[in-house]
Amino acid sequence: MIWKASDWEMVLGQESAGIVTSDGESAHSFKVHKGMGLVNHVFSEDSLKKLYVSNLGIGHTRYSTSGVSVLDNCQPFVVETLHGKIAVAHNGELTNAMRLRRKLMRHGVGLSTSSDSELITQLLAFTPPLEQDDTPDWVARIKNLMNETPTSYSLLMMHKDIIYAVRDPYGNRPLCIGRLVPVGDISGKGKNNAETEGWVVSSESCSFLSIGAEYYREVMPGEIVKISRYDVQTLDIVPRPEGDPSAFCIFEYVYFARPDSIFEGQMVYSVRRRCGQQLAIEAPVEADLVSTVPESATPAALGYAQKCGLPYIEVLCKNRYVGRTFIQPNMRLRQLGVAKKFGVLSDNFRGKRVVLIDDSIVRGNTISPIIKLLRESGAKEVHIRVASPPIKFPCYMGINIPTKEELIANRPEFQDLAGYIGADSVVYLSVEGLVSSVQESIKARQDSENHLKTNKFRTGKIGHCIACLVGEYPVELEW
Amino acid sequence: MIWKASDWEMVLGQESAGIVTSDGESAHSFKVHKGMGLVNHVFSEDSLKKLYVSNLGIGHTRYSTSGVSVLDNCQPFVVETLHGKIAVAHNGELTNAMRLRRKLMRHGVGLSTSSDSELITQLLAFTPPLEQDDTPDWVARIKNLMNETPTSYSLLMMHKDIIYAVRDPYGNRPLCIGRLVPVGDISGKGKNNAETEGWVVSSESCSFLSIGAEYYREVMPGEIVKISRYDVQTLDIVPRPEGDPSAFCIFEYVYFARPDSIFEGQMVYSVRRRCGQQLAIEAPVEADLVSTVPESATPAALGYAQKCGLPYIEVLCKNRYVGRTFIQPNMRLRQLGVAKKFGVLSDNFRGKRVVLIDDSIVRGNTISPIIKLLRESGAKEVHIRVASPPIKFPCYMGINIPTKEELIANRPEFQDLAGYIGADSVVYLSVEGLVSSVQESIKARQDSENHLKTNKFRTGKIGHCIACLVGEYPVELEW
Amino acid sequence: MIWKASDWEMVLGQESAGIVTSDGESAHSFKVHKGMGLVNHVFSEDSLKKLYVSNLGIGHTRYSTSGVSVLDNCQPFVVETLHGKIAVAHNGELTNAMRLRRKLMRHGVGLSTSSDSELITQLLAFTPPLEQDDTPDWVARIKNLMNETPTSYSLLMMHKDIIYAVRDPYGNRPLCIGRLVPVGDISGKGKNNAETEGWVVSSESCSFLSIGAEYYREVMPGEIVKISRYDVQTLDIVPRPEGDPSAFCIFEYVYFARPDSIFEGQMVYSVRRRCGQQLAIEAPVEADLVSTVPESATPAALGYAQKCGLPYIEVLCKNRYVGRTFIQPNMRLRQLGVAKKFGVLSDNFRGKRVVLIDDSIVRGNTISPIIKLLRESGAKEVHIRVASPPIKFPCYMGINIPTKEELIANRPEFQDLAGYIGADSVVYLSVEGLVSSVQESIKARQDSENHLKTNKFRTGKIGHCIACLVGEYPVELEW
Amino acid sequence: MIWKASDWEMVLGQESAGIVTSDGESAHSFKVHKGMGLVNHVFSEDSLKKLYVSNLGIGHTRYSTSGVSVLDNCQPFVVETLHGKIAVAHNGELTNAMRLRRKLMRHGVGLSTSSDSELITQLLAFTPPLEQDDTPDWVARIKNLMNETPTSYSLLMMHKDIIYAVRDPYGNRPLCIGRLVPVGDISGKGKNNAETEGWVVSSESCSFLSIGAEYYREVMPGEIVKISRYDVQTLDIVPRPEGDPSAFCIFEYVYFARPDSIFEGQMVYSVRRRCGQQLAIEAPVEADLVSTVPESATPAALGYAQKCGLPYIEVLCKNRYVGRTFIQPNMRLRQLGVAKKFGVLSDNFRGKRVVLIDDSIVRGNTISPIIKLLRESGAKEVHIRVASPPIKFPCYMGINIPTKEELIANRPEFQDLAGYIGADSVVYLSVEGLVSSVQESIKARQDSENHLKTNKFRTGKIGHCIACLVGEYPVELEW
Repeated sequence: MIWKASDWEMVLGQESAGIVTSDGESAHSFKVHKGMGLVNHVFSEDSLKKLYVSNLGIGHTRYSTSGVSVLDNCQPFVVETLHGKIAVAHNGELTNAMRLRRKLMRHGVGLSTSSDSELITQLLAFTPPLEQDDTPDWVARIKNLMNETPTSYSLLMMHKDIIYAVRDPYGNRPLCIGRLVPVGDISGKGKNNAETEGWVVSSESCSFLSIGAEYYREVMPGEIVKISRYDVQTLDIVPRPEGDPSAFCIFEYVYFARPDSIFEGQMVYSVRRRCGQQLAIEAPVEADLVSTVPESATPAALGYAQKCGLPYIEVLCKNRYVGRTFIQPNMRLRQLGVAKKFGVLSDNFRGKRVVLIDDSIVRGNTISPIIKLLRESGAKEVHIRVASPPIKFPCYMGINIPTKEELIANRPEFQDLAGYIGADSVVYLSVEGLVSSVQESIKARQDSENHLKTNKFRTGKIGHCIACLVGEYPVELEW
Repeated sequence: MIWKASDWEMVLGQESAGIVTSDGESAHSFKVHKGMGLVNHVFSEDSLKKLYVSNLGIGHTRYSTSGVSVLDNCQPFVVETLHGKIAVAHNGELTNAMRLRRKLMRHGVGLSTSSDSELITQLLAFTPPLEQDDTPDWVARIKNLMNETPTSYSLLMMHKDIIYAVRDPYGNRPLCIGRLVPVGDISGKGKNNAETEGWVVSSESCSFLSIGAEYYREVMPGEIVKISRYDVQTLDIVPRPEGDPSAFCIFEYVYFARPDSIFEGQMVYSVRRRCGQQLAIEAPVEADLVSTVPESATPAALGYAQKCGLPYIEVLCKNRYVGRTFIQPNMRLRQLGVAKKFGVLSDNFRGKRVVLIDDSIVRGNTISPIIKLLRESGAKEVHIRVASPPIKFPCYMGINIPTKEELIANRPEFQDLAGYIGADSVVYLSVEGLVSSVQESIKARQDSENHLKTNKFRTGKIGHCIACLVGEYPVELEW
Repeated sequence: MIWKASDWEMVLGQESAGIVTSDGESAHSFKVHKGMGLVNHVFSEDSLKKLYVSNLGIGHTRYSTSGVSVLDNCQPFVVETLHGKIAVAHNGELTNAMRLRRKLMRHGVGLSTSSDSELITQLLAFTPPLEQDDTPDWVARIKNLMNETPTSYSLLMMHKDIIYAVRDPYGNRPLCIGRLVPVGDISGKGKNNAETEGWVVSSESCSFLSIGAEYYREVMPGEIVKISRYDVQTLDIVPRPEGDPSAFCIFEYVYFARPDSIFEGQMVYSVRRRCGQQLAIEAPVEADLVSTVPESATPAALGYAQKCGLPYIEVLCKNRYVGRTFIQPNMRLRQLGVAKKFGVLSDNFRGKRVVLIDDSIVRGNTISPIIKLLRESGAKEVHIRVASPPIKFPCYMGINIPTKEELIANRPEFQDLAGYIGADSVVYLSVEGLVSSVQESIKARQDSENHLKTNKFRTGKIGHCIACLVGEYPVELEW
Repeated sequence: MIWKASDWEMVLGQESAGIVTSDGESAHSFKVHKGMGLVNHVFSEDSLKKLYVSNLGIGHTRYSTSGVSVLDNCQPFVVETLHGKIAVAHNGELTNAMRLRRKLMRHGVGLSTSSDSELITQLLAFTPPLEQDDTPDWVARIKNLMNETPTSYSLLMMHKDIIYAVRDPYGNRPLCIGRLVPVGDISGKGKNNAETEGWVVSSESCSFLSIGAEYYREVMPGEIVKISRYDVQTLDIVPRPEGDPSAFCIFEYVYFARPDSIFEGQMVYSVRRRCGQQLAIEAPVEADLVSTVPESATPAALGYAQKCGLPYIEVLCKNRYVGRTFIQPNMRLRQLGVAKKFGVLSDNFRGKRVVLIDDSIVRGNTISPIIKLLRESGAKEVHIRVASPPIKFPCYMGINIPTKEELIANRPEFQDLAGYIGADSVVYLSVEGLVSSVQESIKARQDSENHLKTNKFRTGKIGHCIACLVGEYPVELEW
């Protein structure tokens, strides 16, 4: 079983990677390989061979956040307990980490890293009073952990021959299960369990296809799933406080996830296209063509173009060979900045009025040189439409958002944003527009019949975390 | 001045890179840095600083070909001559290289590499009988070289404070000149020479934007251009044999060049869109949507969709994080192959009839798993339309084409290609269709007034090298 | 302050290195850099600059032992406790580690590595019942640790602006203090404390000279020393059980330490020379010359030659450029083995009877090809004299000794060792001879006046750990 | 066949390495692997496997000289000629290189490097007028080369299945032949040719032992040797001008060669010991002990001690773990300098008068801190005796000697050298003393019977190049 953070995230600046495997027989013999850098750099063919002791393992990739970037923080985290070794990989950020750290240290546990993963692992290692030395009750320990901290975490815990997949009660971070099918039958049409070759768990369903697995289902908010060689079994569902809606991170739809990923029964690409359509309704404009800042904004741009009946035409092409180019020996190139990332298809828009769709404007320093580039290459007008609302507040649940001062929506320039970035007009999607684009299809599905196997378990009101847009967090923050 | 092979080529598997700079004062003091691998690996900030002795230099990047992959073959090639050092960077392949090698060796010159670049350099170093020791006549030497070998080469030669840019009489390989403009004035509207900050020469115009230069003009077939600090000057134009048309490689349009590059006065993207439109005329099909194999086929797909009035919808997304993944520990993943390169946007085409545009089918082993993937994810029909004709013959002028046996067009499976690759139908663009898509706009420009500054020099009939499609080469091949 | 394991050890195959520094002001802001490999590979100039926040730090180098070779085990070990961070570097091996691990895990502490260093660190982090949250009593915690485990450890613990240097009550592993003196006054003649620039602690005094420090004194068995900017202060001396002699590892004299190191008031070189003299008394031989297996056996060889009045002549020279040469493409070179490590000075011994002194024969597979080489190059007789007794038992206190089966002294071949290795005769130094060579000068010093400042503290009987020679361990071993 | 520069040189700072192998069948299919850095870094097990096409090859290692340090200069140099490829490895420096470069360039040959190796290779490639295209006469070409340049070069040239070993008529650089014998019979007692497994050629005989070969004989000055699978054959001996003595570099004895190497029938170690004995005669001193600057001066120190009857005692031990340590974060360590390279064995010389033998004093900045160290550690007197004369002149024949201004013998401080370096006295060996120490045994051998097989060929007067000591060069220098 492989735990893969989104490939998308890797592009954003992946920082460390690790894999832990178990032979499924001994509780004391994990194989571990971790390292800083991209997956390809961390793992050689040799290191993978050494890890391959069975079909059981968990992995983790981590992208740059404000957290300290050291190998010690690299996941999965492994500790030896009275009952043998456990390995934990986790995605998210505990909202009450500081209190939990102090609690453990008061008990005499020295913490060797600043990572939430070690914290979670030590909380799982901490013997509950009722447990006997010789019979570990991992589910009790996991529920104990979930009672200590409400959100946000999606985690995998491996012990001997079992992997536990856990999602916090608010479902803030994604987690889904895939099924390995015999090669040649990836589609899974008419499959039954007899043909299952194994199970995989991932943050994002898009990773399944590339390893020959098919999407099976999401882990539900609060669910504890036990995964063994042939079986996926729900052990318990820890509920949210009465009345609290679920709080899946809406920015997974807007920005982080790969377009072919599925969350809550819908393809991310479809949500993004609906955002574009909604944006066309909220903010139409008289123009000659609609285009995209390639390539994350393309679904929204196609949706916008279709809704308002304008032709979709490409105006920029990506300069694939940019990388982390230090090749900037002089001021000239530093000033050029974004021009290095895009080529310009001038013949496609010379003398035309362009509506350019972007997926988000966070700091506002990327879009401005693009607009300048289009104007200098002959665009008559450039109207910016942003397929998500402005970000105004920090995230404390795992996403690295610029500081409040860096966010363009909190700066004085936001008053005349069009003027500041050099556009003829600029309009963001409304918060309501985004939420309805996301929830429209979920609600339709809920109303319709039970085609999602897990539906019977789904309890409580469905909501989404929009804290970074409106400043209201799903749980109280502790320091 | 920077000589950059296309960024596109770098993605294809770049193999070596080198830069040579001159201080412009001494004829004996070049700085050289070369290495195997990607530009980013070859050049560190330190090595670039050491190269920065003036504003004068030439560089080269090379992608994998059948040639021997050793550092000795890495360009630019530098030799010391009686008149000081010269450096040569070249793109292309000499059709009579073997005869020229034997000729030099008979004169007693030992050749230390198998590269045409060393050959060219030694031919330039060879003293012509008329030249006096103390007055080098580089133009005579360059013309001497051009008389020895008709094609294919675009080359830069640097000596002291001058760079000579040369394109073979058939113009088989591209070469164009850009003008460095003051930062903030990239568009060049209303510029005059007084504002020129320098000159750059490149295989592809797309590289100009990323270094703050604007497209100035092409080097013409047979032209010898002398480039100094403030001046670009045509020294001579070596003509083709009477009646021979020019022979620019048509595959630069079809496949190699970046879409925002300009050749013969037209944007590559526009040519590709016209190919798609032409394909819609030649091979229409009843279907629900038109899509692309991202992302090189996108201009053709948009052209096809527009021409036949079908909606353009994305069915695949690129899995950016693939790289040279050795991570294939078992048969399962090897069989998955292409599935790792693409994510599938199933909701966009489930139950629909898809026309999928590809830019070329060379070996035929990439398209087949894509079709399978689309079918398994719910496509009702999959029709393949290829925006270029089948490749059937080897290239001896610098492009690394698979052997005749590997080319799908030469194999028995080609008789029932649709069946072989699992498509409902498959049609290639005709050779005539491709040639007219490429030449249509050139002819229109020729008929119209003199908007290309260099037009007055353009002599002879315009043609294109389509040897790999039809087997007729622009010059006789020697062995 | 720098903690350096012997340079000698580094040559043996150093495996990891780490440095932790403190700014001396905050209890929470250590800088840490660790890595696998040689010091030179682990630390770049950049990483050292980042570490340089003050004059306070501890480091560690580790050479290959049977322990698991992973970065997680790399020292110094840092944990956060209720009172801030502590860093621990340690040398040795706890004889009751397994019992202590179980004890901690039963308390609910998950252990993330197999290293004794983490164990020690977590024992130090464990809150003793009497301590108040806001007043850490590190000495009580250190004494608590020393009560839990008798040997073997020499350790440094850093917290905020203090470093504690601790040696176990048996003094099994070395630890000594050096004084940084102003450059130009390394000799320390007539120095007083006013001129002290700082303090350093090391396993071996030989490291002081190379950083401009002079030897100050040893840390005594059981001593807890507090080291601050200007002061070295004995806080306590934890005694051994009544009647137990101290147990400094005798193999530090025989093999591990660099010859210019000082232990127990005597230079290692001098001990080795006395061993050679003693060996000449115990095992004289009629021969023409005495020589050495360069270069660790040279002091013993010179001592032997002097005592028996034979000339000392070199017969081998080291082939410095051997390294970890994988360059063994065929059987021929593998069979040559040791011949690659030595050059042979045939003219010096052709036709002569050679006494060859070696410092130890452990496995017996190094000396045999040397003898063959000497004979084939013309030696008339080769007599081997070993300046230490045979090793027969494993070490459980930090030294990686081959398994019992690998030790030549436990194998049947030992009965006719001379025949087995091809020598004319072979004699080891007796255990009594070694012990008297080591203790002779110590006893003389004890009898004489108080020239060692620390003498007043030295309590109990002085002994040495000779467990690997005779099988009697200084403390009971636990599992 | 392996061409190895001295292992000793590698320690001095090896800069590049290369190997070329031939399959012995085709004249066009060399395998080449070269790179910058140490042999171990340049060659991986994989690269060696790829080179292993037969038993035929030449290699080269190069240490830092004033020459430009670029890969292009890395040997062996390979060129293709009319008759196929040749590879050349060479040691030395041509005294008339500039004139030969101009000559070649005037013929129209561009030279791509600044190395003499390319020059030699192109001179060998240059067709002599008499040779027919289809019958290469390599001996004529080699003799042609030797007529163009008198010295200094020892070179190997490989073509197809033959290696030519050539030493210049003055024999300035060493070159010798070894015989691969069956493993287990390295001594060669009673061997005949039937048992020969192959031939190797090397600058230094010391390299033979480590690859299982035994010393066979030297290549004589001016000799051209043809080496094939089973045969070593003298093709010709190019004589020196009438009356010129041979001119083997005397500094190979004094400094460069490994002590177990054999030149002119004598072991380098023996020459160095004789220099020490001669020095004791020329410059005795009243003292308590004789010691060495380890470890190159040890043979001379033992010779000096023996001759003057003083005990030989070690006062310094090498700090093996120094390397290119950049670990010098502050002034303190930079000032310590040499203290890092040596440990001091104070107990061995406290209160004693020390005679310290060094092999050479070139710049004078190494010995001074050593003397200071000995004094501060208790030496009563320190007398320096140098086992070679002062170097005063540059070498133009391949050895990188500091500039005249850097040589201590040319500086004003030389007038009171003892005072400058802080010694009680300092005396160099006389030029006559060095020459007689070197030639004594050669002359004795010449007078005795014919025990050297090659003696019959040895013609002319035997001399040595002492240009760096006295300023008279064996041939006229050209610029």
